Amino acid sequence: MSHAKHSAILLISCPDKKGLVAAIANFLMTYNASIMHADQHQDDSEQLFLMRVEWSLDGFTLPMDDFAAAFQPIAAEHQMTWSVSLSSRKPRMAIMVSHYEHCLADLLHRWRIGELSCDIPLIVANHEDCRALAEFNGIPFHLIPVSKENKAEAEAAAWRLFDEAGVDLIVLARYMQVLSPAFVGRYRSRIINIHHSFLPAFDGAKPYHRAFARGVKLIGATSHYVTEVLDDGPIIEQEVTRISHRDDVDDLIQKGRDLEKVVLSRAVRWHLDYRILSYGNKTVIFD
Amino acid sequence: MSHAKHSAILLISCPDKKGLVAAIANFLMTYNASIMHADQHQDDSEQLFLMRVEWSLDGFTLPMDDFAAAFQPIAAEHQMTWSVSLSSRKPRMAIMVSHYEHCLADLLHRWRIGELSCDIPLIVANHEDCRALAEFNGIPFHLIPVSKENKAEAEAAAWRLFDEAGVDLIVLARYMQVLSPAFVGRYRSRIINIHHSFLPAFDGAKPYHRAFARGVKLIGATSHYVTEVLDDGPIIEQEVTRISHRDDVDDLIQKGRDLEKVVLSRAVRWHLDYRILSYGNKTVIFD
Amino acid sequence: MSHAKHSAILLISCPDKKGLVAAIANFLMTYNASIMHADQHQDDSEQLFLMRVEWSLDGFTLPMDDFAAAFQPIAAEHQMTWSVSLSSRKPRMAIMVSHYEHCLADLLHRWRIGELSCDIPLIVANHEDCRALAEFNGIPFHLIPVSKENKAEAEAAAWRLFDEAGVDLIVLARYMQVLSPAFVGRYRSRIINIHHSFLPAFDGAKPYHRAFARGVKLIGATSHYVTEVLDDGPIIEQEVTRISHRDDVDDLIQKGRDLEKVVLSRAVRWHLDYRILSYGNKTVIFD
Amino acid sequence: MSHAKHSAILLISCPDKKGLVAAIANFLMTYNASIMHADQHQDDSEQLFLMRVEWSLDGFTLPMDDFAAAFQPIAAEHQMTWSVSLSSRKPRMAIMVSHYEHCLADLLHRWRIGELSCDIPLIVANHEDCRALAEFNGIPFHLIPVSKENKAEAEAAAWRLFDEAGVDLIVLARYMQVLSPAFVGRYRSRIINIHHSFLPAFDGAKPYHRAFARGVKLIGATSHYVTEVLDDGPIIEQEVTRISHRDDVDDLIQKGRDLEKVVLSRAVRWHLDYRILSYGNKTVIFD
Repeated sequence: MSHAKHSAILLISCPDKKGLVAAIANFLMTYNASIMHADQHQDDSEQLFLMRVEWSLDGFTLPMDDFAAAFQPIAAEHQMTWSVSLSSRKPRMAIMVSHYEHCLADLLHRWRIGELSCDIPLIVANHEDCRALAEFNGIPFHLIPVSKENKAEAEAAAWRLFDEAGVDLIVLARYMQVLSPAFVGRYRSRIINIHHSFLPAFDGAKPYHRAFARGVKLIGATSHYVTEVLDDGPIIEQEVTRISHRDDVDDLIQKGRDLEKVVLSRAVRWHLDYRILSYGNKTVIFD
Repeated sequence: MSHAKHSAILLISCPDKKGLVAAIANFLMTYNASIMHADQHQDDSEQLFLMRVEWSLDGFTLPMDDFAAAFQPIAAEHQMTWSVSLSSRKPRMAIMVSHYEHCLADLLHRWRIGELSCDIPLIVANHEDCRALAEFNGIPFHLIPVSKENKAEAEAAAWRLFDEAGVDLIVLARYMQVLSPAFVGRYRSRIINIHHSFLPAFDGAKPYHRAFARGVKLIGATSHYVTEVLDDGPIIEQEVTRISHRDDVDDLIQKGRDLEKVVLSRAVRWHLDYRILSYGNKTVIFD
Repeated sequence: MSHAKHSAILLISCPDKKGLVAAIANFLMTYNASIMHADQHQDDSEQLFLMRVEWSLDGFTLPMDDFAAAFQPIAAEHQMTWSVSLSSRKPRMAIMVSHYEHCLADLLHRWRIGELSCDIPLIVANHEDCRALAEFNGIPFHLIPVSKENKAEAEAAAWRLFDEAGVDLIVLARYMQVLSPAFVGRYRSRIINIHHSFLPAFDGAKPYHRAFARGVKLIGATSHYVTEVLDDGPIIEQEVTRISHRDDVDDLIQKGRDLEKVVLSRAVRWHLDYRILSYGNKTVIFD
Repeated sequence: MSHAKHSAILLISCPDKKGLVAAIANFLMTYNASIMHADQHQDDSEQLFLMRVEWSLDGFTLPMDDFAAAFQPIAAEHQMTWSVSLSSRKPRMAIMVSHYEHCLADLLHRWRIGELSCDIPLIVANHEDCRALAEFNGIPFHLIPVSKENKAEAEAAAWRLFDEAGVDLIVLARYMQVLSPAFVGRYRSRIINIHHSFLPAFDGAKPYHRAFARGVKLIGATSHYVTEVLDDGPIIEQEVTRISHRDDVDDLIQKGRDLEKVVLSRAVRWHLDYRILSYGNKTVIFD
């Protein structure tokens, strides 16, 4: 898709009915919008209409500060849940890690070469392993060790940091701690996790070991939004790779790393490009 | 996607400019259309706007016999190339085959179980091999042998049959004759071929042998619209599968058959569902 | 791989130790065997050695009728479980079906064009749907309806047919009845089933519906040997395909059919080519 | 596969004939070798036998310094081309880069976490872009600018560095200069390149632009040994990914980067694990 420097993206979900596309298109045309992308989806089982529309701000006659007020009547009439974002404002993304650095290294490299359109104000880790990598990339690294005893305090420390940094998105790049419902609730649909299996198979601990024990012929990875139920949130992306009887658990872990990097980075990119709408326990990925 | 029994599909291509989505949505809304799918694409390099919109005819107040007249002013204003189709009218598809029957068998089975929404009034073959399969499926089988000497007559005989049968689409299911420019010109964007390589690699004869000789690690298949230039038309779909040094040419041929079936049948289904727009030497596949 | 008309295939599993490859190679060399393929695998966690070796019978000086007696001392010394097969003797394969005919149609077509090296003495079905397809292919079709009340009798009727026909392999081509432990026990490692999910996810009933409900981004199919535990036997092959939010359950079912056909037919072919060794709950696929 | 710290790997190619497996197995058994992996391949069209065998050095009674002398009679008898390597001796790998750092970053990260079993004594670049990355990883970075005028001198400077460093393998990680036949000849089967297309399609310059212009539905990447003919050497690995009409050239470049990293790193790993034999213009990848 074409990537404009000055565009606005509108994400909408509402009960499905006639005339929604026309209503939105007419609203935008009133202000001389040049639509770059428009994509919608109807979920027939849920009677839901979901839409993403992106338009260039060159020549758009409605100041974006006045957008909400101007759009509100239409949104109210159609019971829309909506948000508008500007491509010129980079989302602020925090990354949480533990020992393994492959997903972090991958994300940081993509960010450095411009694949991920965001700022990364901080990295929070419960172990020291990734400090050098963070510092090489010039990103503040905060160590917050987590134990059974201090879990609540550790989470509180993390969210203070996130609040201060104005974080929009939290990426768990193989962060090996289960987050509390309270934490998850603060950042609903804004925490992306990578799970190293093809969910719903092998949710929970040690998925590669269990995949090996079961004798599967493909292994997978899944990126998803985090909800209160472990490994059960809306799936954003999945990918698999072939294994054979010659692969032992270490081989699965190695092959799986490549899946994890790709599957997590796609989810992050799509989120940063405002291409994901989640509803119920599903996601729509607008292309 | 949802599949309505009574719907209309409009395919449009025109120079890109502002307001096209709104113009079309408003036109349809005027007649109380319930839009089921709408998808558009802008080709920035060609400054082209391409759209597919499908709406239910339940409650649509414009009789479809009057559609052309009603839509013409908008089409003219925006220099649209357009076509409208009714899901209730099944396209008529001819199949041309030679010796190999795997693609034919696959298409006929998909047709029999309802995957392909079309009528198949006839099969034309230059060899006898596939007659039993055609007859089992109750489809008239016409043998038109082709030699260097009779090529023009053979093609003329085929197109008389196609004309009489009112054929909309011709599928070359491993038909091993090169069609003349005259033949191709009569059915522009309406002949689909399967080529047994990952085009543009190994165009022309014996692609599996050449893939083996080159030592590639993946083989492919490509479905495309036929143009005057051999294996050069707009690509509709491609797929690959992995091979190894253990595979000899016979193994490639066998693995390739599975690719050919899948890649050809997808192209045919998309065409029959009016989901393909071709422009220049490319295709847009609306999903 | 090269495919000889007159070859023998030896499959071996035994406790791993030094000298096994040399012992087997020397035995074969004693009789002037020309080895065409040899592949072995060590499962380190089970301390198991598994081997497949295929040699040409041209010039092999040991009559195959005497093979067992000649090989027995080596087998006994190394505690081998072993079997030897001749490529010239075609295995006899029965197919069981219910309503859906896509897997059956696919297997029969592959058999007809020579992809599957076997005889098919009969098809057993609990519904009438596939009779015409069986008869077109000249294969006796036996209807054995199954109900809660007659399940044991129905199974007994089937295995009488299989015994009379000298069946080596039973393929469940979307056969929608759970087989009893007694039935499974008679044909251990000789019943291949296709399950329409990526096992272990969505084992049991209605996997496509549950995959849709969970919002996965890939769907899969799994072929496996049938054991007493439903959908839990050794996995032979798996494959997945991508779906999106645009796909409803019917789309999943359609896309899944292509997976089922490919995944089942690969398992059948590998079994018929004596390329599978199952041990514990796993399979080795020799290539 | 299992990964021993003290093992030896023997790679052999020779004219195919009877008794080769037994000859090699017996030789190793004489010295009490515990074979960990053995895999062979016969190329029927070339009448060639190719084998890789790996055995543990624990309990192996032949000192490896005496291996060549002991094995030479067998090798001579069967006209073998052979090499033996010790898993305890890490190959020395040089990397050549230009502007793009994604392949380099990927290789270095894999090396740091232990995926690539080698030493990396130096990086040679014709541009400055990758210096920081090299230095972060503690690897000497040598800038050797290349122009039309100084090409021969630049190559000579590079190979002096490689000679001093005792380099076994040169990886071109998107190095954007064509190497001279003289250079290639010095390191036959020891230079691995990544080409950003599915060869033989789009060999030469700007493959992503040409793939976009042709309207393909999949893009690919190919790793291969470098020969005197550009993009024509033995293919080691290939992979593809799906694109759509929505992807412009920048999207292809981005999606292609993921392919390039995976395809190059696999080739490098297999080479470092002595799993590749190249013959003619093909490769055998032992698994």
